[in-house]
Amino acid sequence: MISSHRNPLIKQIKRLKQKKYRIREKLGVIEGLRGVLTAVETRPDLIDTILYAPDLLKSETIYEKISRHPQAQAISRDVFQGISDRDNPTGLCAIIKSPVRPLADFPVNPNGIYTALHEISDPGNLGTILRSIDASGGAGLILVGKTTDMTHPAALKASMGTAFTVPIATADSLNDLFVWSDHYKLNTIATTANADSNFWQADYPLPALLLMGNEQRGLPPDALQATQQTVTIPMHGQATSLNLAIATSILLYEIVRHQNH
Amino acid sequence: MISSHRNPLIKQIKRLKQKKYRIREKLGVIEGLRGVLTAVETRPDLIDTILYAPDLLKSETIYEKISRHPQAQAISRDVFQGISDRDNPTGLCAIIKSPVRPLADFPVNPNGIYTALHEISDPGNLGTILRSIDASGGAGLILVGKTTDMTHPAALKASMGTAFTVPIATADSLNDLFVWSDHYKLNTIATTANADSNFWQADYPLPALLLMGNEQRGLPPDALQATQQTVTIPMHGQATSLNLAIATSILLYEIVRHQNH
Repeated sequence: MISSHRNPLIKQIKRLKQKKYRIREKLGVIEGLRGVLTAVETRPDLIDTILYAPDLLKSETIYEKISRHPQAQAISRDVFQGISDRDNPTGLCAIIKSPVRPLADFPVNPNGIYTALHEISDPGNLGTILRSIDASGGAGLILVGKTTDMTHPAALKASMGTAFTVPIATADSLNDLFVWSDHYKLNTIATTANADSNFWQADYPLPALLLMGNEQRGLPPDALQATQQTVTIPMHGQATSLNLAIATSILLYEIVRHQNH
Repeated sequence: MISSHRNPLIKQIKRLKQKKYRIREKLGVIEGLRGVLTAVETRPDLIDTILYAPDLLKSETIYEKISRHPQAQAISRDVFQGISDRDNPTGLCAIIKSPVRPLADFPVNPNGIYTALHEISDPGNLGTILRSIDASGGAGLILVGKTTDMTHPAALKASMGTAFTVPIATADSLNDLFVWSDHYKLNTIATTANADSNFWQADYPLPALLLMGNEQRGLPPDALQATQQTVTIPMHGQATSLNLAIATSILLYEIVRHQNH
């Protein structure tokens, strides 16, 4: 059992709180029962090391399962509390390989609904959007340009395990994204404040690619011009804007509705 | 100009970072240009004190407007940075009175769509939901039971000013909420995993009350029994759950769509 805060594995976990190490090592840390168990069950290829504190793990079933895992390491309660981001740690975390692949390796389903996020900056939004893609039956996510990283602890936490169930790719630029979407004949969709049709009236032929921009800046004008279909979400209030994860999810469910009705 | 960290106003702002002081004093602190300016413009009755740091405020227009405000106090850059929650403070914050009123004083619009949140715990979700209520043209929000407080800095921040534009009330219990909704003949709506109809097929007569539960526990069974209409949001993924703010917003926009089509 690891009981020293200076153990190399513990030092590595602390370093992985910094984005530059996560990017360089293509690793991240996921904490909590649901996230780690989803990773173990759905993407065993992404597990680097599992760390568990027997004194903190309350479930006997989970203890039995995890303690026998070939990549699992027991650590002391004290050391676990030192690396945990939580007030009440549940005693389970894992170092995982990044689930992100290059766009060139991305499968395209002819009935798929894809989501691309350009320069998204908030990791909580990223995780929440993955959860909505998973729930709505979406086919995958593409992160475009400089974005928050998929291995950010807040992104992994908000994703509730869906970072391992939803296919995720990266594209260096919008140009790369459009080359890919043209090749696979995806119908590209974006939102603007003054589109010809509102998002309830539009049709959404599949395969579809919903393209959303940065939280503050939205999409650049040339991206909107390159998009085949623009729609408006009607807004009646004084704030005239929705949170990015909210707008993305409302659109995803509306695209799904149009396939059924 | 206030230049001491021990000035009573500065001490008060620091105390208001604690929930118990916010509840006792019925006050909160809002930071940032958009939030403070929305409060000043839409709810001047809620302004207690405005604090601005001339060295940090970049906009001359805002400086002119704020420095003349009768309740504004200039403070030094150093003191402002000491009370700010941000890495790059913009030099404007305000002590505001809680925008929440008792349910008995809540106006009911016969064409209104109301949202009630029972025991919601995440202040970011609360602020995001207010933004969606504002955007969708919703009539108001009711916080039911023990919830995160509306004056939490994260709730005010995520609301992007809509904590001042959306009417907000509190109800001590679900029973109080149902007495109110029966009195005004609101059509109550809730979600369950296995309702008779999915949320696209249902009708939503107005005035309507959308009732959502806690992030982890959902609504208690007796609340679901007391609700007139239950609907299901279809979920296809492995996570089988949506973030609370996402589910609430998808339902609000669907209720709006049914009024137009």
